[in-house]
Amino acid sequence: FAPRATRPSAGLAHSRVRMQAERINTQIDLDSPKVVNMLELEGKAVYCRCWKSATFPLCNGAHAKHNEATGDNVGPLIVTAKKD
Amino acid sequence: FAPRATRPSAGLAHSRVRMQAERINTQIDLDSPKVVNMLELEGKAVYCRCWKSATFPLCNGAHAKHNEATGDNVGPLIVTAKKD
Repeated sequence: FAPRATRPSAGLAHSRVRMQAERINTQIDLDSPKVVNMLELEGKAVYCRCWKSATFPLCNGAHAKHNEATGDNVGPLIVTAKKD
Repeated sequence: FAPRATRPSAGLAHSRVRMQAERINTQIDLDSPKVVNMLELEGKAVYCRCWKSATFPLCNGAHAKHNEATGDNVGPLIVTAKKD
């Protein structure tokens, strides 16, 4: 077995990324059975995917602090509505 | 201090949601320093926010299994491009 040469991301080799069965959301609408956001888009928007943003569902850069604290690499989703 | 009457979500009272300093992403582009997706949208799309979808950045329903295994309540982002 020849391990694929991978650049360890923030010191974490693939195999040592502990498979986590932890919840991702510890802040947003905890009383809701499932947090689904349905939004209309005009132009461009940056959406949160780290569940830590104070402006959720929009991104406010909170992923930086989360990534630093955990060695994670999550970032936002940037969507632009196609012009006709 | 009068605690807000909250319906414990899946048996987890607010106070017992353990504040997790764990990584959220254990599957997607682990070699990337930060996973950011820039997409154009025509019509409607359902985007993954649980980082478990096999069709990431699009949702494939993988959040259901994650939520069941962890008591989490994460769901997708549904975006519709505004018609002129």
